[in-house]
Amino acid sequence: MYTILVYDVNEKRVAKALKVCRKYLNWVQNSVFEGEISEAKLKKLKFELSQKLNLEEDSVIIYNFQSRLYSQREILGVEKNNLDRFI
Amino acid sequence: MYTILVYDVNEKRVAKALKVCRKYLNWVQNSVFEGEISEAKLKKLKFELSQKLNLEEDSVIIYNFQSRLYSQREILGVEKNNLDRFI
Repeated sequence: MYTILVYDVNEKRVAKALKVCRKYLNWVQNSVFEGEISEAKLKKLKFELSQKLNLEEDSVIIYNFQSRLYSQREILGVEKNNLDRFI
Repeated sequence: MYTILVYDVNEKRVAKALKVCRKYLNWVQNSVFEGEISEAKLKKLKFELSQKLNLEEDSVIIYNFQSRLYSQREILGVEKNNLDRFI
C-alpha cells in the first residue's frame, strides 16, 4: 500500500523520529514521508516510532492508500526530494 | 475530492500561508491541512498561496484523492485537531 506519514514531534525527539521513518519511507519534506510499504513493515515502523516518541505530546498522522489510482500529487514551489527517482 | 496539503515554508511567510490554507482546509497538525474541496476552490487556494510564497524557496505538496474509499487514517500519539468534529 502507499503511505503518507506526517509528524509533529518535540525537537528533543525529532532526530530519532527522522531516523526511524527514513528506514521505511522516503523523506519528501520537513516532517513528511511517503512510499510503498507492506502491512508488516508499517507495523514495525509504528512500533519503533512509539518507542522513540512521547505519545502524550508528539503527534503522527499516517494515511494509507490501497491504491494510488484515484490520487494525484502536485507540487507548488520547490520539490525538496524528487520522488520520481524512486518510482 | 479529498485533499491533504503539507507545506515547508520560510518562517517569514508561514503566517500568511497558514491564513490562506485555513480558509479552504482544516488545520490538523503543524504545516498539515486536510479536507473536502472542489476543483474550483483548490485552484483559488493554489493561486492565493503562490501569491504569498517564494516559489524558489518554499515547498507545498498537495495530494488529491477522488475517493477516500481505499484510504485509512491512523493517529499515533496526540491528535492535534480531531477531524471527527468536521465530518
